[in-house]
Amino acid sequence: MGPGPSNPYPEVAEAFAMPLLGHLDPVFLTILDETCERLRQVFRTTNALTLPISGTGSAGMEAAFVNVVGPGDVVVVGVNGVFGERMCDVAARCGAAVVDVREEWGRPIDPQRLLEAHSSPKVLALVHAETSTGVRNDIEPLAESKRDALLLVDCVTSLGGIPVDVDAWGVDIAYSGTQKCLGVPPGLAPLTVNQRAIDGFVDRSQSWYLDLRMIAKYALDGGSGRTYHHTAPTAMIAALHAGLGALLDEGLEASWARHAECGRMLHDGLEKLGFRLFAEEGHRLPELTTAWVPEDVADEAAVRRTLLDRYDIEIGGGLGAYTGKVWRIGCMGHTARPRNVTLLLGALAEVLDR
Amino acid sequence: MGPGPSNPYPEVAEAFAMPLLGHLDPVFLTILDETCERLRQVFRTTNALTLPISGTGSAGMEAAFVNVVGPGDVVVVGVNGVFGERMCDVAARCGAAVVDVREEWGRPIDPQRLLEAHSSPKVLALVHAETSTGVRNDIEPLAESKRDALLLVDCVTSLGGIPVDVDAWGVDIAYSGTQKCLGVPPGLAPLTVNQRAIDGFVDRSQSWYLDLRMIAKYALDGGSGRTYHHTAPTAMIAALHAGLGALLDEGLEASWARHAECGRMLHDGLEKLGFRLFAEEGHRLPELTTAWVPEDVADEAAVRRTLLDRYDIEIGGGLGAYTGKVWRIGCMGHTARPRNVTLLLGALAEVLDR
Repeated sequence: MGPGPSNPYPEVAEAFAMPLLGHLDPVFLTILDETCERLRQVFRTTNALTLPISGTGSAGMEAAFVNVVGPGDVVVVGVNGVFGERMCDVAARCGAAVVDVREEWGRPIDPQRLLEAHSSPKVLALVHAETSTGVRNDIEPLAESKRDALLLVDCVTSLGGIPVDVDAWGVDIAYSGTQKCLGVPPGLAPLTVNQRAIDGFVDRSQSWYLDLRMIAKYALDGGSGRTYHHTAPTAMIAALHAGLGALLDEGLEASWARHAECGRMLHDGLEKLGFRLFAEEGHRLPELTTAWVPEDVADEAAVRRTLLDRYDIEIGGGLGAYTGKVWRIGCMGHTARPRNVTLLLGALAEVLDR
Repeated sequence: MGPGPSNPYPEVAEAFAMPLLGHLDPVFLTILDETCERLRQVFRTTNALTLPISGTGSAGMEAAFVNVVGPGDVVVVGVNGVFGERMCDVAARCGAAVVDVREEWGRPIDPQRLLEAHSSPKVLALVHAETSTGVRNDIEPLAESKRDALLLVDCVTSLGGIPVDVDAWGVDIAYSGTQKCLGVPPGLAPLTVNQRAIDGFVDRSQSWYLDLRMIAKYALDGGSGRTYHHTAPTAMIAALHAGLGALLDEGLEASWARHAECGRMLHDGLEKLGFRLFAEEGHRLPELTTAWVPEDVADEAAVRRTLLDRYDIEIGGGLGAYTGKVWRIGCMGHTARPRNVTLLLGALAEVLDR
């Protein structure tokens, strides 16, 4: 119940137990095609260029930027947590002129401020679910007013846990990670890119490994065969295939409802135990809950260690200025079950003697 | 028996079956520390900066270049196959002035030509074991004459299969992949960098994801705690930990001897069946054998498909100009067993009616 990785779905463990397949094996290529199609369903998109990047969520972020941002391009970034900061760093390394729109941690970014930050940015970038603060930034209001900008959204901690609707929202580039609400170990970054973003690709990405034009020639069957780029991480892709299967068998709406229920239980339960929640009401993520460490807790790390040692429960500490001051509790993917929330609340009551 | 991935060691499947650990879990951090230490043993180095990069072997290549190469830096690259070509592309995207030293595919690079290609390059880069051709390029002769250059070596298909001796050879940066002679699924890139190379790091790597200064603060325990960079791919690292354990339990020399024996069996057996080997004698890799497709084989892809369908054996086709003309047969990691060679030779004799 940390901020990720979550516990994988049982189907994922079964996939890992299967014999390893080569990246050109016809059986594997079917799994890869199905994985891309399942990702389209989960992202709610018809984008052909939808695939798992061979790295963690942060590789997805880098892949999103390096393919569309070149020297001098204006990139507006909403920053209200660690991952917004990271976007600025990644964009700057592409040579972008970064315009950051800052908000206090724990509060959402006002879409209007993002839209008014620059008259004609190439990219508007925002984190949908800030894992560092438990805050949801609203994406939908950006779509209709983005004009010529490409809307680039970090869905690492949102995809599968709360509604994400890439096509309906007009998101041009979105990426995620496998280890949050998708219930798969860390190691892959689902990514989707629409034609509008492809039309905005730089001539040559500064990254060979994350060059989407080259990756697509292997990962997507265009009817004319596959051109080898890098060796696909076949075991992890088979695991993702299985996790997405479990998610889609349950149904996206059912998964969102399950995450919502667990989040409500946790928010209410923590407040009953005397905790103050950190994220602003109305923008609290159900899958990632932040709470101030109670003032009577002298050694917060010791409490977290007791949860781990005695109950096998991991929860996360705060980041940046909130190190030692805030806890971050994940309830994502297969972990998002009422029984886990009940157990954590009971354990906290015991350890904190409430 | 394709050019990778190879079959994982049984211990790797056991590691995948263990519960998933978080990237800050103390149990996982012990596994990570042990993995780095095992990589030092396998690379034969005392380099502190030795760790698995969170991507496939090609991510290791990119990590090797982006941390030491900036705009205008001279990089001399030996090119006698696909992966030498790839090095040129990756270096060029860093803004390097690339000096390529070309040799016919199937023949090794003459170290002297590499040394004489430029008076003062920042980097001398060479692929130790060319997976596209089955040729070994000798590294040792470069070390003593490299002067101020950093020696950057691709050990993707050599590490664990033939002698690699990073410190004794004076290699400054080396990387590998997990899916070849280490007997682990694809998805991680072991990498080692010495102090000389660290001293040559660019001020800011163009890649955030592959920035070794930042990665090291998480991956290596410097005694002052771990600074989160990206979420480590914990399942894959546990798998690598197990695979390296199997390799080191056997012993590096024993593994090299096993690969050498299988390579000899395969080379001899193929010649007895009438094949002509592709790679130049004296520089043939035991773990990756290349042979010309016999002239009486009209449809080489159909033969490979029969091997896969009837015998569950995958072998690889040729790359580039050798597509359809050459076969590439891997005998790596757990796959490097005499019984597999015997089976393949028997299957080829049956299918080709020899």
